[in-house]
Amino acid sequence: MGIIKLLNTFRREHVDLALSIDIGGTNTKMALIAYGGNIIASDTVPTQQFHNESAFFQGLFLAIGNLLKQIKQDYQLLGIGIGAPSCNENEGIIENPANLPFSDRVEIVQIFERQYGLPTYLIKDSNAATLGEYLFGAAVGVPNFVLLTLGTGLGCGVMVNGQLAKGANGLAGELGHTTIVPNGRSCGCGKRGCLETYVSATALKRTVFELMATTLHKSVLRKTSYERLTSKDIFDAAQQDDRIAIMAFEETGKVLGRKLADIVAYLEPELIILTGGLSKSGILLIKPTLRSMEENLLNMYKGRVRIRTSALGVNNAALLGAASLVWQGEEYQLKAESN
Amino acid sequence: MGIIKLLNTFRREHVDLALSIDIGGTNTKMALIAYGGNIIASDTVPTQQFHNESAFFQGLFLAIGNLLKQIKQDYQLLGIGIGAPSCNENEGIIENPANLPFSDRVEIVQIFERQYGLPTYLIKDSNAATLGEYLFGAAVGVPNFVLLTLGTGLGCGVMVNGQLAKGANGLAGELGHTTIVPNGRSCGCGKRGCLETYVSATALKRTVFELMATTLHKSVLRKTSYERLTSKDIFDAAQQDDRIAIMAFEETGKVLGRKLADIVAYLEPELIILTGGLSKSGILLIKPTLRSMEENLLNMYKGRVRIRTSALGVNNAALLGAASLVWQGEEYQLKAESN
Repeated sequence: MGIIKLLNTFRREHVDLALSIDIGGTNTKMALIAYGGNIIASDTVPTQQFHNESAFFQGLFLAIGNLLKQIKQDYQLLGIGIGAPSCNENEGIIENPANLPFSDRVEIVQIFERQYGLPTYLIKDSNAATLGEYLFGAAVGVPNFVLLTLGTGLGCGVMVNGQLAKGANGLAGELGHTTIVPNGRSCGCGKRGCLETYVSATALKRTVFELMATTLHKSVLRKTSYERLTSKDIFDAAQQDDRIAIMAFEETGKVLGRKLADIVAYLEPELIILTGGLSKSGILLIKPTLRSMEENLLNMYKGRVRIRTSALGVNNAALLGAASLVWQGEEYQLKAESN
Repeated sequence: MGIIKLLNTFRREHVDLALSIDIGGTNTKMALIAYGGNIIASDTVPTQQFHNESAFFQGLFLAIGNLLKQIKQDYQLLGIGIGAPSCNENEGIIENPANLPFSDRVEIVQIFERQYGLPTYLIKDSNAATLGEYLFGAAVGVPNFVLLTLGTGLGCGVMVNGQLAKGANGLAGELGHTTIVPNGRSCGCGKRGCLETYVSATALKRTVFELMATTLHKSVLRKTSYERLTSKDIFDAAQQDDRIAIMAFEETGKVLGRKLADIVAYLEPELIILTGGLSKSGILLIKPTLRSMEENLLNMYKGRVRIRTSALGVNNAALLGAASLVWQGEEYQLKAESN
């Protein structure tokens, strides 16, 4: 059946589509995706331009309408997959989202089912990206891997035996709030020494500021305030051999590598995928991370675990992962081979 | 079919049996187990009385022969399940075992298949115990849980979505060698600050010696040398309100609770099972562990995760878990309900 559907896509006669939506603090992306992972059309709306959820959904539905108009062939919309932060997949709601213009409890699945009359599936954003990489990206054929999203915070998806490890109540994946430095940096969650205070875009900035305080190295970064400094600035400085910037990446990788060694000892994934804004720094981050992980691994694991960046980018991975729920219905014990 | 088999067991007409063996550094246990988990007969041989593997297997086969003679009804032996440390399940071998009188590489599955002409299954001891608790013990109906064996070292089994998380090459579960104190106590593995140097029977003794060094509290434990002191001595002292002994349990629980909070954030198990020698201290260990875990949990997890000791004891859990492989053949994607 998959082959017939794909042929139909190429022949532009008739196509079954999934609508996929990735809701993020900065942007909300949407795409129409055919079976097999072809993104037929996509668009983005800036999330923060809307001041409340009703304005947000109105704007989103408008954008979706325009997207559908772009499809010039016959199509059938089969269902909707939504990736979002702070979501309760079982109840189909978004709860207390930190960075969305939403109230405390948004019944997002119900809202979409009412609007479109189509089956709608909700999945945590990091799980969506993990599923996307497993089905279409860097982890095809890799049943045991971990994906880290390195952005403002640190998110995580865990694949075990080819299944997402979601935990007893869908609350797994808070690796960002495991301790890496006892009594270390203060975290927004109220605890101290959490991994995301040392490994994330925000953490990289904190490390730069710590290095500016503890060393006397000259740095272009000393000209910028804490509020204005971005991880992109730090990346650019590192490309210009700025010593503080390079040290900040090295420190970040050192801490991340220690945590990855612990993850390997615990679950033995064969692959770690880094994604999100900070992962765009590529080798600058991966090299010290790999070195530190290897240093901290038990001998039996050394040289066996790969670290790489996303094959799809976090946005496309999440869109493809969320869309896959539509194809698989609620039985998404997925096997990459079957795609 | 399960019901018919059970009825047969009760009628003492004919019974299908699995031979299960749990190889440990101190004792090797064996049992004949019927479908449904009835242990029909069992025996133990001290592992260290044998000076090499050939003597060990000779002694073990003799004991198994005697065990089979105890069965007074008709029976059929369907297969053999073996739980062991340091094993490579895929290759059916035991490699470089630290505490067994074995050479570097023992092809144990082949040895048993030659001796008995029966299908033989090998499983890591901590995984066998985890499977046993899931099918017959404290974790029946609990698809996401973690089991810790607290003995000389710290072993671990992880159940995710009702499946053992064995890792990419069967090397998962080395939680004992994840870091809990950066640059902390030296570990036998060559690293520093590993969890098992703070949480295990041996670790409890190290903590007692640290407390004898850092405090001036009177303690009966000051009369005993490091070499002679056992965790049972420390337990007995704690029962007599010995301050150092009680403090040692509290310290151990505090460290363990911190690690469990990290495990919950990462995979969100709903249950933690403590087993092995040190777990016999029960509430003395569990109370400070639970307190520390709760203190370190993110709010969304508080009050949701149980900690308890084994329902079966580590030996029976491992025997039952290993035996279950015989019943399930190589397709042991087990569901507790089906038993």
